[in-house]
Amino acid sequence: MYNHCISPFSRLLHDFQAFPMTAVEQLMSQALQLAENGLLSSAPNPAVGCVIVKDGQVIGSGFTQPPGGNHAEIQALQDAAAKGHDVRGATVYVTLEPCSHFGRTPPCADALVLAGVAKVVAAIGDPNPLVAGQGMARLQAAGIAVESGVLAAQARELNIGFFTRMQTGKPWVRLKVAASLDGKTALHNGQSQWITSQAARDDGHMWRARAGAILTGIGTVKEDNPQLTVRTVPPILRQPLRVIVDSKLSISPDAKILAGGGNLIFSATADANKQALLEQQGAEVVVLSNADGKVDLPQVILELGKRQVNELHVEAGSKLNASLIREHCVDELLVYLAPSILGDGRGMFSLPALENLDHKLSLKFHEIKQVGEDLRILARFR
Amino acid sequence: MYNHCISPFSRLLHDFQAFPMTAVEQLMSQALQLAENGLLSSAPNPAVGCVIVKDGQVIGSGFTQPPGGNHAEIQALQDAAAKGHDVRGATVYVTLEPCSHFGRTPPCADALVLAGVAKVVAAIGDPNPLVAGQGMARLQAAGIAVESGVLAAQARELNIGFFTRMQTGKPWVRLKVAASLDGKTALHNGQSQWITSQAARDDGHMWRARAGAILTGIGTVKEDNPQLTVRTVPPILRQPLRVIVDSKLSISPDAKILAGGGNLIFSATADANKQALLEQQGAEVVVLSNADGKVDLPQVILELGKRQVNELHVEAGSKLNASLIREHCVDELLVYLAPSILGDGRGMFSLPALENLDHKLSLKFHEIKQVGEDLRILARFR
Repeated sequence: MYNHCISPFSRLLHDFQAFPMTAVEQLMSQALQLAENGLLSSAPNPAVGCVIVKDGQVIGSGFTQPPGGNHAEIQALQDAAAKGHDVRGATVYVTLEPCSHFGRTPPCADALVLAGVAKVVAAIGDPNPLVAGQGMARLQAAGIAVESGVLAAQARELNIGFFTRMQTGKPWVRLKVAASLDGKTALHNGQSQWITSQAARDDGHMWRARAGAILTGIGTVKEDNPQLTVRTVPPILRQPLRVIVDSKLSISPDAKILAGGGNLIFSATADANKQALLEQQGAEVVVLSNADGKVDLPQVILELGKRQVNELHVEAGSKLNASLIREHCVDELLVYLAPSILGDGRGMFSLPALENLDHKLSLKFHEIKQVGEDLRILARFR
Repeated sequence: MYNHCISPFSRLLHDFQAFPMTAVEQLMSQALQLAENGLLSSAPNPAVGCVIVKDGQVIGSGFTQPPGGNHAEIQALQDAAAKGHDVRGATVYVTLEPCSHFGRTPPCADALVLAGVAKVVAAIGDPNPLVAGQGMARLQAAGIAVESGVLAAQARELNIGFFTRMQTGKPWVRLKVAASLDGKTALHNGQSQWITSQAARDDGHMWRARAGAILTGIGTVKEDNPQLTVRTVPPILRQPLRVIVDSKLSISPDAKILAGGGNLIFSATADANKQALLEQQGAEVVVLSNADGKVDLPQVILELGKRQVNELHVEAGSKLNASLIREHCVDELLVYLAPSILGDGRGMFSLPALENLDHKLSLKFHEIKQVGEDLRILARFR
């Protein structure tokens, strides 16, 4: 029967936690919440959270600092020390297996051994082949009790880009579209400012901010001349790499997206003069062409993975959107649906007509949320 | 920050009941749940629920029976009597003001007075001009304590069609569309079976079942030849009136929708021979033409209101959908969104291109629910 009287969001899509949490899960949940504080600044490192518990009290906590800074475990150890707590015999709850290798910082596993903690509970193993179980093994070898797999799904979800890159070499690719309820992203004349609400546009900047790179196409650069920077998310901790797919290298040196430099342009055409011009502006041009003389999109994704991009945020037009989807480069759609009808207008994806419904592209709804007056839908390709 | 770890439905659209319910509200909530049992059978009467409470115990309960049968209050009184309870001095919780007029049944207010109850709590006043406060006045005049306005919004929502018809003379018009995430209702070749899941299609039959009438256009009749009956909702208590908009009266007498008779066909063209033929099949033809020689849709809606249709369920093609929307005949969209992408295909509404986003049609999301793998969105025109 209909539930007119209760919440309209009466069923959950992904009810990670249908049952009451255990005490251990509650502490891990605290660590996960801490980890979220690093989401906009930790890349290319994963955003990790850590709480240290002794005699039933949280005596220290921390989260991953920007690259070169402390990892979560070190932050938590220093926090406990600063507060005058003795961590010997304590239990450490951390959302990712402590690292065992020297990266920009020394191994966290060693620091935990030195600190004399009694037990380490990790949400999930580190997918980094340089760690991959060795962190836990190192702790265990030093006589520290270890446990893993507490709220593992949530922990993976939080760093889905890092996990994806470690496991496939590619970033997690999230394609954003804003559309009316009837699926239109712009009027036929191109007008699209604004279909969704300010709240949805601000939310979109949050997703830009957590991405390692933002990708668009030359069509959008020419038509909308966007900056594609993170603007409405205070504080702005870093700007993602801005990537342009431009098969004919026809971008104008005056395009706003080039302001400030640091762009990466993928072209299918080598053009030494144009490249030199763009490089003077601080852009880098990479030529990656496929058999059709277009930019080889799967290679673009791999290249961005090599450059340590965990999450790639796509904001492009319906043609590049369609090409990325057709070439299986997209993991997830981030769709903002406005409660409006536009009628005839531009669609989300310029995909060719199907002859049979069996050939439809199938996804799975992952998360639905109301943002301002709009709906935010995350849907993942199967 | 993002709530990756908790429910994806983390915000409510219409949180009617954000605070804990009072004892009175809890009892009214029980009555509302009972009322839902009548949703598929009470039309054209409102679906009402009633609980009778004495000494803190529910001693009787009931809901509206099909037309000609008992109203909820009488059911509850009879239930209490059957269980051997004395209702004198009891409090009655009813989701709609008791009626004060003789319709198919005698006035419920009189029955409550005769029964000797001490108090009547109504969720909301009856919008029927034949009642409109007189039920409560009658009770009060007989020395019964009265209270009104408990969970009033929910009570109105449950019978939104009845309230709308009583207040405007028109049914509540709900237009259903099933579409892919990119807003396509069919492939360009017309194939649409099936975009949404079986669960969504079954849910759609529930909405058909609660409607007083189902409306479609001649285009859909010719292209899909649907029966437009309620089928997958057991038990099937009644079949809604099936209404066809057919400006040129070109429907084939063999159309499946005419099977079983009882159809109502709106035409813009009088054609005595065709009318006679259709009437032999048990259909009624009403000619209602506008200045353009098309069926006058606002007049159709009014005519259905006169015929006591509380909720009109529209399942039509993109052209009739668009005409109904353009002529302000639609109150609510019932959109099933499948997690799929179709690309080029048919849209929801054949509306002309806008020149300016200021002219977009604005709605408000009212309810979102997952049904099977699909999303069900209720959005209301502002």
